[in-house]
Amino acid sequence: MTQILDTIQSPADVKKLTMAELQQLAGEIREELINVLSRTGGHLGPNLGVVELTIAMHYVFNTPQDHFLFDVSHQAYVHKLLTGRRDRFHTIRTPGGLNGFMLRTESEHDAYGAGHAGTALSAALGMAAARDRLGGKEHVVALAGDAAFTCGITYEALNNIASQTKRLIIVLNDNKWSIDKNVGAIASYFNKLVTNPHYHRIYERAAKLVERVGGKSAAQVARKAEEAAKSMLWPSVIFEEFGLKYYGPADGHDIPSLIRTFEFLKQLDRPVLLHVLTQKGRGFEPAEEKIKKFHGLGPYDPETGETKPLTQRTYSEVFADSLTALAKQNDKVLAITAAMPNGTALDRFRAVHPTKYYDVGIAEEHAMLFAAGLAAKGMKPFVAIYSTFMQRAFDQIVHDVCLQNLPVVMCMDRGGLSGDDGPTHHGLFDISYLRGIPNLVHMSPSNEDELADMLYTALLHNGPVALRYPRGIGPGAEVKAQPVALEIGHAELLEHSAQDRVAIFSLGNMLPTARKLAQALDAGGVPAAVINARFAKPIDAAMVRDFAARCEVLVTMEDHALAGGFGSAVLEELSRAGLATPVVRIGWPDQFIEHGKPDDLRRKYGLTAEAALEQVRQILDSRARQALGISV
Amino acid sequence: MTQILDTIQSPADVKKLTMAELQQLAGEIREELINVLSRTGGHLGPNLGVVELTIAMHYVFNTPQDHFLFDVSHQAYVHKLLTGRRDRFHTIRTPGGLNGFMLRTESEHDAYGAGHAGTALSAALGMAAARDRLGGKEHVVALAGDAAFTCGITYEALNNIASQTKRLIIVLNDNKWSIDKNVGAIASYFNKLVTNPHYHRIYERAAKLVERVGGKSAAQVARKAEEAAKSMLWPSVIFEEFGLKYYGPADGHDIPSLIRTFEFLKQLDRPVLLHVLTQKGRGFEPAEEKIKKFHGLGPYDPETGETKPLTQRTYSEVFADSLTALAKQNDKVLAITAAMPNGTALDRFRAVHPTKYYDVGIAEEHAMLFAAGLAAKGMKPFVAIYSTFMQRAFDQIVHDVCLQNLPVVMCMDRGGLSGDDGPTHHGLFDISYLRGIPNLVHMSPSNEDELADMLYTALLHNGPVALRYPRGIGPGAEVKAQPVALEIGHAELLEHSAQDRVAIFSLGNMLPTARKLAQALDAGGVPAAVINARFAKPIDAAMVRDFAARCEVLVTMEDHALAGGFGSAVLEELSRAGLATPVVRIGWPDQFIEHGKPDDLRRKYGLTAEAALEQVRQILDSRARQALGISV
Repeated sequence: MTQILDTIQSPADVKKLTMAELQQLAGEIREELINVLSRTGGHLGPNLGVVELTIAMHYVFNTPQDHFLFDVSHQAYVHKLLTGRRDRFHTIRTPGGLNGFMLRTESEHDAYGAGHAGTALSAALGMAAARDRLGGKEHVVALAGDAAFTCGITYEALNNIASQTKRLIIVLNDNKWSIDKNVGAIASYFNKLVTNPHYHRIYERAAKLVERVGGKSAAQVARKAEEAAKSMLWPSVIFEEFGLKYYGPADGHDIPSLIRTFEFLKQLDRPVLLHVLTQKGRGFEPAEEKIKKFHGLGPYDPETGETKPLTQRTYSEVFADSLTALAKQNDKVLAITAAMPNGTALDRFRAVHPTKYYDVGIAEEHAMLFAAGLAAKGMKPFVAIYSTFMQRAFDQIVHDVCLQNLPVVMCMDRGGLSGDDGPTHHGLFDISYLRGIPNLVHMSPSNEDELADMLYTALLHNGPVALRYPRGIGPGAEVKAQPVALEIGHAELLEHSAQDRVAIFSLGNMLPTARKLAQALDAGGVPAAVINARFAKPIDAAMVRDFAARCEVLVTMEDHALAGGFGSAVLEELSRAGLATPVVRIGWPDQFIEHGKPDDLRRKYGLTAEAALEQVRQILDSRARQALGISV
Repeated sequence: MTQILDTIQSPADVKKLTMAELQQLAGEIREELINVLSRTGGHLGPNLGVVELTIAMHYVFNTPQDHFLFDVSHQAYVHKLLTGRRDRFHTIRTPGGLNGFMLRTESEHDAYGAGHAGTALSAALGMAAARDRLGGKEHVVALAGDAAFTCGITYEALNNIASQTKRLIIVLNDNKWSIDKNVGAIASYFNKLVTNPHYHRIYERAAKLVERVGGKSAAQVARKAEEAAKSMLWPSVIFEEFGLKYYGPADGHDIPSLIRTFEFLKQLDRPVLLHVLTQKGRGFEPAEEKIKKFHGLGPYDPETGETKPLTQRTYSEVFADSLTALAKQNDKVLAITAAMPNGTALDRFRAVHPTKYYDVGIAEEHAMLFAAGLAAKGMKPFVAIYSTFMQRAFDQIVHDVCLQNLPVVMCMDRGGLSGDDGPTHHGLFDISYLRGIPNLVHMSPSNEDELADMLYTALLHNGPVALRYPRGIGPGAEVKAQPVALEIGHAELLEHSAQDRVAIFSLGNMLPTARKLAQALDAGGVPAAVINARFAKPIDAAMVRDFAARCEVLVTMEDHALAGGFGSAVLEELSRAGLATPVVRIGWPDQFIEHGKPDDLRRKYGLTAEAALEQVRQILDSRARQALGISV
């Protein structure tokens, strides 16, 4: 079936193909994407949309000498298939397999890694400026979706491009992602460009040009194209004001036209933006119809696109449903997302409270400031952003929310290991980067019902709250009809006795591991207390001191980096109290964690009851030996 | 002399004045600014530029019912003078006195606090959206300088304004700050608007209008103005594309015209942007001539503008000079600033290496990504950004620099307490927010020569480096002609003996305090080692373990928040090593620190040798009592 794709060992093999073969290759790639991702899950829709575009780019440019930067780079699967990774493509997003994003360590064709949005233009400008300094001839091509243009960094880049390089090719991959969601002015602007009858489509004119030049050499074609440029292409005012030449809109599924266009653009000595129209999910009917579902998803039926329905609500869904209920009771409650209504499940909130819902685009900084402004006027905004993307709003959290002590609630989805998506999406730093900020309350639930209680607690608290909860499903705790308020800074004592020799402070989703450890210790004759810590800031200082004073070992457990995390806060408290009780801290080590199954990765890096048990035993044994030594 | 200003207790008093009296008020305010700031220092130039503008705003709008948000808000001194703070104005930026920025806790007229750039439009939109929800009639007015439009957040806000409110007034205070510096496309765009003969100045037309309406009532003036609007005002394409009505350019020093314009704008039911031209330093000849010097400065002669020359180089200057020298030896060295060539002293680098210098505007995120792109192509970029502003680039540090392990050097000026500027400018969190990030090296010099060595060390290190150094001058150490490379993660042992009972690990500028503590301890018969820690990550684990194993107390000292800071890293290491040596951690408590003199604030919050001594003594005494108890 996949005769041509089998022959593609590198982009050089793409260049040998005829137009008809390239077309066939596109079909084969689509088939490969649909089949592989039906097993692995992944960003199907975006990649089906850029098949022809990626083929054309590799036909014209020469990576790794030339550099491709893909914004977010979730749409780089086709690029991976064409750059020597076809044989491993079936492993994508699986443990030990290909990463779901561009990764510099994975291939020399991945010039720049990504996973967060809005970085491609700025980084590409850096590479272009370096090339210019070094006198290189290579091309730098940045591919960014229309949603990236709702992100402030993209504008910071646009503001700098014209003054810093003469050669940079930006491809605006317009699949109407932001237009469908109707987010902001730039979406309307792109739509106007596309629908304006004065903007002739580049591919129609290019087709005519090719008819005229007939069978002549590529160089001649290029020269002719250059001559025809002024008449055939139309400018866009905004991009022109930023000093970029605008070309388009072009049909992103017409390989010959795209190839001619890139051949033309690569000769220009000024920065350009090519506006390409693509269709998400192209070639797979279920994905064409349900664009959002097929943006990124788990395994599905390759024939029908059916996915297995989840029988249990995810943490995101519990969050959204609980907030929906709170908003019914309280008019001040508002929900804000930065272009993630599905990922955060706030689409469920929107369905009930459309006027209390704001989607600001991929603009985390603005989202936090907008919330701060709302809070300054007495509203109670809940800002739902993945833990890793909350990093974008860090300065606003410090300077606007916490310094002004405004009651904004930061709802950090994907707090902890994110699994398949890998290091760009793990949320392993939000305690360490937030714990140092005064006025902030930082909490994590151990189950779904507690998440609902924490949202209610955050609603009642008149100050900044950060609330982290894990990706996916939890233990499946039933959520009470009416949440209760928790006391800020108070942990929950779950298991204890007067004989406890060990106390386990578990934060968030580590609780089952903590209970398992306690059972193992108990089984070995060492009674252990289990505490659901709830708060990473302020921690329950009284309970920490109490157990530290009467136990031989404390254990802290967190789905977070150890450096500066919850366990570190416990150490600080013990130091403050002058208590020398040893602490076994369980969490992620000081390195970026690869993608994989959370359970596998926890085993690999020691976030298990067994690993904790080993450490606790060592301390108990060493104390026993010391005691023995003294008594001798 | 200041007869009218003496009568202004609140904005209501401004509204009672005639145009002639308003003009006189402007003169009196200028005099007050020039005189007071000659003693206190502060942002003289920006405030001299907005005297008439602020008067006109308070004449037309009614704070605190209406809300003013000033971007950065360093230009809010006139606003403070008109809102009941005249009697305390002489205390501005002095200990216990008025803050140099808007502060919600200082006055109900300060609707929103600031200190960092680019936040006003987003926060104002939040307030406007809340107002709309609540059915309020009040006005929200955001004042932002042209430099704020180089900042991505401003664009994120622009992208959202039109879809989220119908009433918001944005005042673009164009004092050509970004144009003078020629930063990026938006600066050229503003310049084009101003110089384009088709853009008639609003004030000329307004003047004619007023001639026609003569002595009629304000309401009539407003109605007439509205009728005349379409003919008298000209649109700007970019702002129109963002759904904002553009008006201007207007003369920012013509009070009657500004008043009429605001009266007109407040009646509109669509978001508007008023482009106002102002002159920095207006009315004080030295400030008009030396715009950059008088942007923000210390005390000066109110007659001549002369300032006392510093006899010693600041840390910023040593940084810039050292980097200049490195760039002479190594072609890969590049310097990047985010609109702070003076503050970071990189103007000295620029003078020698103009082509190796990049000013990207107030665009910290882009700065870091641009650096990452340069580094990916083999360059060695040094990004100089104040510690507090580096918070803006946090996600890029994690996701682009550290995850990809690119050799970008983050040069964090104003690391530690920043003094007069207060909580928005203190750099007290950069260890806690960066220490959790893998691959990063974090270091701080104890003197100028060590800063030069650390820059050289960073140049040689093939990975991300964060380097923090304090504001202002240091101990004045002579800088060697050729720097030497330091070993990463190795502390410097300065004073020690075999009898040491205490070991003091000092980070950065705490070294004099550490030495003083050691002397005090020695004087009391307790020998103490002094260690210049140099690295907050990785810390010198071997040295920490060594001293912990043989001393009774460790002391850590840092000009940084205690939560998650350097001392916390030491606690983590002791925990890892199973060492129970008590640690006295000296640093800033978990609260935002007000403005003031660093020495005063250090005394107040216990960052002194005396406070440390007290804590060490308590521990030593308690151990002595314990020892006694056992021997009895």
